[in-house]
Amino acid sequence: MSSMSVNGVLICVGSELLRGKINTHTATLARRLQPLGITLAREESIPDDQVALTAAIRRGLAQYPLVIVTGGLGPTFDDLSREAAAEASGRPLIRSAALLRGLKAKFHKARYRAMPPMNARQADVMRGAEILPNGFGTAPGQWLEWSPGKILILLPGPPRELKPMLDIVLARLRRVFKTRPRVERHLHFVGIPESRADQKIRPLIRRYSRTPGVQVDFTILAHLGLVDFDIFVEADRARHATRMADTIVKAIQQRLCRYFYGLGERHTLERAVGDALLAARATVSVAESCTGGLLSAQLTELPGSSVYFLGGVVAYSNRMKETQLEVPAELLARHGAVSAPVARAMAQGIRARVDSTYGIGITGIAGPGGGTKDKPVGLVFIALATPQRTRVQKFLFTGARDVVRARAVTAALDLLRQDFRPHR
Amino acid sequence: MSSMSVNGVLICVGSELLRGKINTHTATLARRLQPLGITLAREESIPDDQVALTAAIRRGLAQYPLVIVTGGLGPTFDDLSREAAAEASGRPLIRSAALLRGLKAKFHKARYRAMPPMNARQADVMRGAEILPNGFGTAPGQWLEWSPGKILILLPGPPRELKPMLDIVLARLRRVFKTRPRVERHLHFVGIPESRADQKIRPLIRRYSRTPGVQVDFTILAHLGLVDFDIFVEADRARHATRMADTIVKAIQQRLCRYFYGLGERHTLERAVGDALLAARATVSVAESCTGGLLSAQLTELPGSSVYFLGGVVAYSNRMKETQLEVPAELLARHGAVSAPVARAMAQGIRARVDSTYGIGITGIAGPGGGTKDKPVGLVFIALATPQRTRVQKFLFTGARDVVRARAVTAALDLLRQDFRPHR
Repeated sequence: MSSMSVNGVLICVGSELLRGKINTHTATLARRLQPLGITLAREESIPDDQVALTAAIRRGLAQYPLVIVTGGLGPTFDDLSREAAAEASGRPLIRSAALLRGLKAKFHKARYRAMPPMNARQADVMRGAEILPNGFGTAPGQWLEWSPGKILILLPGPPRELKPMLDIVLARLRRVFKTRPRVERHLHFVGIPESRADQKIRPLIRRYSRTPGVQVDFTILAHLGLVDFDIFVEADRARHATRMADTIVKAIQQRLCRYFYGLGERHTLERAVGDALLAARATVSVAESCTGGLLSAQLTELPGSSVYFLGGVVAYSNRMKETQLEVPAELLARHGAVSAPVARAMAQGIRARVDSTYGIGITGIAGPGGGTKDKPVGLVFIALATPQRTRVQKFLFTGARDVVRARAVTAALDLLRQDFRPHR
Repeated sequence: MSSMSVNGVLICVGSELLRGKINTHTATLARRLQPLGITLAREESIPDDQVALTAAIRRGLAQYPLVIVTGGLGPTFDDLSREAAAEASGRPLIRSAALLRGLKAKFHKARYRAMPPMNARQADVMRGAEILPNGFGTAPGQWLEWSPGKILILLPGPPRELKPMLDIVLARLRRVFKTRPRVERHLHFVGIPESRADQKIRPLIRRYSRTPGVQVDFTILAHLGLVDFDIFVEADRARHATRMADTIVKAIQQRLCRYFYGLGERHTLERAVGDALLAARATVSVAESCTGGLLSAQLTELPGSSVYFLGGVVAYSNRMKETQLEVPAELLARHGAVSAPVARAMAQGIRARVDSTYGIGITGIAGPGGGTKDKPVGLVFIALATPQRTRVQKFLFTGARDVVRARAVTAALDLLRQDFRPHR
């Protein structure tokens, strides 16, 4: 009945992580640990410094039942994880004869030369620790049950060595920490500001959080016009957690149905649009000005998009708008390139040329230059031509050039998505 | 003569960082702080948990002269950096009337609606802290000189808000921590593998590192066909550092001139190409298949690109290749869409249609499906049509769909860049 989920600390070792190299281990481990009900309570990146590393491991062991250390298991002088872990745990290093033999054999077999003396350090193991074999490198991992239910794990840094070892580590962790069943759901929204989504969802979640025996946790994340909402439900039984998660998802969907475009961790707006087009056996083509090909690029990010995406024209100049999209010169002269009539003509032009179900036209001012008082930077017209009619929407986006462009692409995808929604 | 470098702690706030989102702030900040002689001694990722966050900030303040906190400055309930920083520093939050007015004005101006009451929290400032204006979002940063020479900084999480604020932050840090004069240079290469660049550059750097009174440091970072090389030189006098940095740059340029495309932290391959086109008063148009608009999007990323970029066609279907680019149907039938002759016809077709100096054609198989034994996934043909002739290059890229697409775009830009190099 206790709702304790297990918390762990991840310590990533390597000076390069503090000098510009991007850390991907944290994301990898977080994603693999989550389904086991193990949450990372903290991640620390520590340079190749034995004092700092020992302190970090010691702090982790004092606070949490699980400490994972990645990196610092190589053979060189700046690989110090073994020494630091031994010091922090009070378990001295013992050189394993079996490991040493294995290391020498690996060198003999794979590299056709004798093992450098320095590499013998890779056979040093904390007293009482078990060895985690490394199939893709010379650095074995270590698993130490420091005290009952308190685990210290050392893993190699290179992703191609670490990733294959995770299966063994996770199976062991599952046996040690008999965690409560946990279910997660990922919801995606478009066209609603983060704060407003939060206002609408928060009281709803709070209500469900009161159910006894169930723990509901969630995060909200906004990015360039998109809002991601993640829910985590823990209960004594898997089906309770699943039922509660589904109830919450349904309630949120109803509350924000206009803005909801899908479920699932890797779901994207272009996938939602692609799925809708596929289901309707419809096709789309696009005519872009200020977004310069970004909408086409996003629509073709998915494999198989060639079924519904027929093609696009990037008409940066007025001349291209006339020759490739048959936008009348008179329209350009009268209203200017950034105008509702031109967006409309672009959408209709590409649709007719390519003979697609839908045509999208985008024209705007991405900035930073080119704005006027009447037509400021951020002004974008987006048109959707359907077999029935053409809709044009006007937007005024704030932000830098790349933000205006990204938001225009999102808005265009959203316009198309809305055409597939009922009750319009 | 003392070369004491300053150590700082970076605290990245956000549960998403412990649930699978990749942290890029650490790399960004590490790279920007390095030239100032400020080294990150630790990075911690902390979830949206006020207790944990307060403890992390407190620990940082006790250990190091600089603590930077990113994220957790949004308006929602799980944005807790302001509260945690106030608690850890013992400086209570005071709601700034000026900030509140500014926030309301931003909402009024940009979003045409009233500010949600929740957002008022973004006007809360630690007593004694200075406000760091945020030009791209509603969350201002904060700068607190907690005690003499001890700095606590709060910055917003979204990279597009954080990055522009760094200039101000770095200038202030430079004033507070008077480190040795330090000069940095950023070199960019394309078309050479990281390991080969490293092999060629390392001995060169080692030679210069032996100069007394001068410290040379460097990092090398490869990403999707591009290699970035950063050099940091520290000396007692600025002009010594500058002279040494320029000497090293010149030596490296000579060694790798074929692959070198520019200097400067924010230099990009599309900028190198754009500058070359501008200088030559030349224009370019592109015809894309597998890259689906990505090359157009990249060429138009820069403001002012409309001077040299005339437009593009994304011809995903054979039909579009025939109707929009005048690729002969017979060519498509005989050689297949992914072939050197079709790439050539696409480049020539778009060049003729748009009447540009250069035309680029790309056709390939981005995968994961669609590959055959003869034409595997990753096979890409890129053609460059110039006023004199048309060159076609064949590539076989490895990696996932997005990697193949990105590498094809880089290779296309490189092909165009090479046309501007002397002695070909």
